Amino acid sequence: MPKRGENMVVETQEEKPAIMERLHRVGITNLKTVARINWKGRTYTFIPTFEITIDVPAEKKGIHMSRLVESITEAMSEAVEEEVMRAHTSLEELGRCIIGRLEDKHPHRRAEVWIRTHLIIPRETPASKKTSYEPYDVEVGVIKSENGSFEKVLRVRVIGNTACPHAMANNDGKTHIQRAVGELEVRTTFDEEIALEDMIDVVESSFSHPTYTLLKTVDENAVVQGMFANPKFVEDVAREIFAKAKERFKGRIHVKVISNESIHKHDVIAETWS
Amino acid sequence: MPKRGENMVVETQEEKPAIMERLHRVGITNLKTVARINWKGRTYTFIPTFEITIDVPAEKKGIHMSRLVESITEAMSEAVEEEVMRAHTSLEELGRCIIGRLEDKHPHRRAEVWIRTHLIIPRETPASKKTSYEPYDVEVGVIKSENGSFEKVLRVRVIGNTACPHAMANNDGKTHIQRAVGELEVRTTFDEEIALEDMIDVVESSFSHPTYTLLKTVDENAVVQGMFANPKFVEDVAREIFAKAKERFKGRIHVKVISNESIHKHDVIAETWS
Amino acid sequence: MPKRGENMVVETQEEKPAIMERLHRVGITNLKTVARINWKGRTYTFIPTFEITIDVPAEKKGIHMSRLVESITEAMSEAVEEEVMRAHTSLEELGRCIIGRLEDKHPHRRAEVWIRTHLIIPRETPASKKTSYEPYDVEVGVIKSENGSFEKVLRVRVIGNTACPHAMANNDGKTHIQRAVGELEVRTTFDEEIALEDMIDVVESSFSHPTYTLLKTVDENAVVQGMFANPKFVEDVAREIFAKAKERFKGRIHVKVISNESIHKHDVIAETWS
Amino acid sequence: MPKRGENMVVETQEEKPAIMERLHRVGITNLKTVARINWKGRTYTFIPTFEITIDVPAEKKGIHMSRLVESITEAMSEAVEEEVMRAHTSLEELGRCIIGRLEDKHPHRRAEVWIRTHLIIPRETPASKKTSYEPYDVEVGVIKSENGSFEKVLRVRVIGNTACPHAMANNDGKTHIQRAVGELEVRTTFDEEIALEDMIDVVESSFSHPTYTLLKTVDENAVVQGMFANPKFVEDVAREIFAKAKERFKGRIHVKVISNESIHKHDVIAETWS
Repeated sequence: MPKRGENMVVETQEEKPAIMERLHRVGITNLKTVARINWKGRTYTFIPTFEITIDVPAEKKGIHMSRLVESITEAMSEAVEEEVMRAHTSLEELGRCIIGRLEDKHPHRRAEVWIRTHLIIPRETPASKKTSYEPYDVEVGVIKSENGSFEKVLRVRVIGNTACPHAMANNDGKTHIQRAVGELEVRTTFDEEIALEDMIDVVESSFSHPTYTLLKTVDENAVVQGMFANPKFVEDVAREIFAKAKERFKGRIHVKVISNESIHKHDVIAETWS
Repeated sequence: MPKRGENMVVETQEEKPAIMERLHRVGITNLKTVARINWKGRTYTFIPTFEITIDVPAEKKGIHMSRLVESITEAMSEAVEEEVMRAHTSLEELGRCIIGRLEDKHPHRRAEVWIRTHLIIPRETPASKKTSYEPYDVEVGVIKSENGSFEKVLRVRVIGNTACPHAMANNDGKTHIQRAVGELEVRTTFDEEIALEDMIDVVESSFSHPTYTLLKTVDENAVVQGMFANPKFVEDVAREIFAKAKERFKGRIHVKVISNESIHKHDVIAETWS
Repeated sequence: MPKRGENMVVETQEEKPAIMERLHRVGITNLKTVARINWKGRTYTFIPTFEITIDVPAEKKGIHMSRLVESITEAMSEAVEEEVMRAHTSLEELGRCIIGRLEDKHPHRRAEVWIRTHLIIPRETPASKKTSYEPYDVEVGVIKSENGSFEKVLRVRVIGNTACPHAMANNDGKTHIQRAVGELEVRTTFDEEIALEDMIDVVESSFSHPTYTLLKTVDENAVVQGMFANPKFVEDVAREIFAKAKERFKGRIHVKVISNESIHKHDVIAETWS
Repeated sequence: MPKRGENMVVETQEEKPAIMERLHRVGITNLKTVARINWKGRTYTFIPTFEITIDVPAEKKGIHMSRLVESITEAMSEAVEEEVMRAHTSLEELGRCIIGRLEDKHPHRRAEVWIRTHLIIPRETPASKKTSYEPYDVEVGVIKSENGSFEKVLRVRVIGNTACPHAMANNDGKTHIQRAVGELEVRTTFDEEIALEDMIDVVESSFSHPTYTLLKTVDENAVVQGMFANPKFVEDVAREIFAKAKERFKGRIHVKVISNESIHKHDVIAETWS
């Protein structure tokens, strides 16, 4: 083991490890920090959760974790300190900017940045036409592979519902209804332009009916009538998301729908991918 | 700080702390271990999660944590090693047995044991009369207070549903339906005999309809018809659980019902207590 | 049941319930929406999780849930639409503003608003004096009681660590160290001025050492040396938080510290209250 | 839509869907029920969480969910009702038995069963040689692919610790220590014999030191001394698990280690796979 002199730091990370295996992903996870995004001329502040990893070659014991944090916090403070003008225009642009800073700080062959946050989107309710603010979970991954090319993974998670067509056919129009959650992932090249908002629309429009945070009685009636007019299995919801996503987005598609059945204590799942 | 001699252990816990404040609850939490209960002549094995705490007087720095673990594991091994004959007859009897062992091991004025687990209860489905195994979350707390008296806290958590009466009245019999979760807590003297199964029945019978893991089409129809025949707000479910519980169980009652609305992304809550 | 005419809405909520029991808390929970706070001249955007409840008298079947949502979203849109000038100056001021709007919309005797979010606070690292952005969980509750008076509940949750003094005394200065989480709650009158930042400071300064998102090697050394210089049981951390909080904040204090032991698979807990 | 006669059930699932896409995984998830396993001559009862899915061809609207539940509950009741003699000898044997029953009930080309539960294993503490019961999370997946062949996925999750070698080298033997969690997955042919207990051993022996539920002071000292004698990065732990697993188990290996840093509020991750 190297000796440590006056003001000298031992860099244990640079030593040869006992077991020489390359590791694909080493880094930091569950890091919460502030991010500021300038999107369509308006600034949004988030407190996303970050994961950032690089690979470690077989002959190095470890990575310098603080350089990963610095890449995040420097990219953040660009936005935080220089305000709106320098705010990043999308989560994936922020992710790529973090990898860019990392290239100057820490050698690596592959790198990943994952950013998970919530989006709030205003919607108009179906009958009273009031504004309702709807929350969605989104996650963006930026992956630099060994040949230097970049790909991205975009994920949205949307809450909706299903009204069972089987029970409806067997009960003279009565049926069981429940909350369902739809997830859509698109994995594509970095430069492919796909808005998270469009992915959210694809999922939200595929349920028996969209849901709203604010519903006056006339809106509630419209949602109830809409659900009964559009009964769907989780299978139907998954197929509709899948078909729409294949048509609108270029890339590999993964769809998962989980329904919190109102007649069972367990959930029902439908999943498919391209 | 006391010196440590050959084979001598420093008991830092017995030292005087810098800040002399009595602490009400010090101990171990999130401990998973095996428990065996002999109930109505049949042995059940669980892997519950335990919390066990005692108070610390102002003049002691800390407690001897390993003695709390020993109290649990010894009470456990009674059951594990001596098999059915010595298995405890209820979770609260097990909790009290743990406190009993603790009295020999560690001085204290008050003590608490909390045991959280799942119960699986066989039910008969409404039409096909098949057996369906239903899961429930239960938690039992045994509390010894400073005067030496024992009380217990019994909690059950049951999954059911609500069919909205307001939407039904405004949509010619159509309505939104969703999964709901009902929680009932009874806090009472240790010797009061209350079966967790009876508490589960009180909650499960207060929804628009009970739910089942296994439902053939004829059963599903019965559940759907039942939900439409019995529309309820979360308020109605909470009131029914509360009224039944007050009638059947002696002690302080707390009721909470949360409904995972199928028309909203948020939940609805009704809570009350005696 | 009342008949529904042309364009007439049945208000099932106003009917007399089958079981006439007053309910203490009925409302909405797990609602995520955007909030904008203007604090010390700077605007912060959050996506908090809200719970809002009112009581229901024995003779009313239910509450009008949408009016609760409107109270939140209107108070939100004040901030969102009228920008910085009208942004609320604290989470509790926002909570009280929501209850204020609710008073015009829905009769009630008691009301509660709970707002849960994350705060990011910049800190200076101990040796390199770099800026590190640190995340904290906070929750604020505003409670209007039946006599019309307001109280508030302030909660912070801070991640730190403990270095065990008992193991240190028995192992010639070596010991086990682990992440710990400290929670402080103050329940007080609405007008008592207590900054969440000060509560966070009380908790963070009571661990063996504060933690940082960004640590260069010289900082890491300072943290390690600091932890060994300041060994503490969870009991010690809980007492220090409690003593400091009693001195700095007027109100009822509750402290809970949980240590994710590095030598066990379970956690250790210390809890006390005034 | 088919008409429903007297006592006739509409099988909506058999209809042609609006969007004709094959779905890879449709079924039931988060189902908790009781399972009884006879392992090495001793019977163990679990309450695992099940997921069971089959594929749906493009031309069928949905699957008959209740047949999946029946496959589970029948396989369960074999064990529950016929007691020890018929109890399944492993979780994967149980999973395959469920798929076997499913073959008689529901046509499909591929099927998956996933079973997630806890194991409690007795260990001997390092110095006092007492028995300590240790909890582990395990998950077993059985996958029947379209050519009729079976593979299985075995997963274990073990709690341990890391003592940082970099801080130790820079602080004259002092360092930061923390809880870490290691996950090992082996994907292999169904008939490959791999005990979950052996996988747990591989992970648990790769930390700075194993952890124990029960530790008397002499044991605590042994663990502390052991951690300082064996400092490891998460990278080192991941490599050791990976190397040992490749040597002992035939199949595709995936390793993930997450360390709950005591000097940071975030976690550190190391992950690799074959």
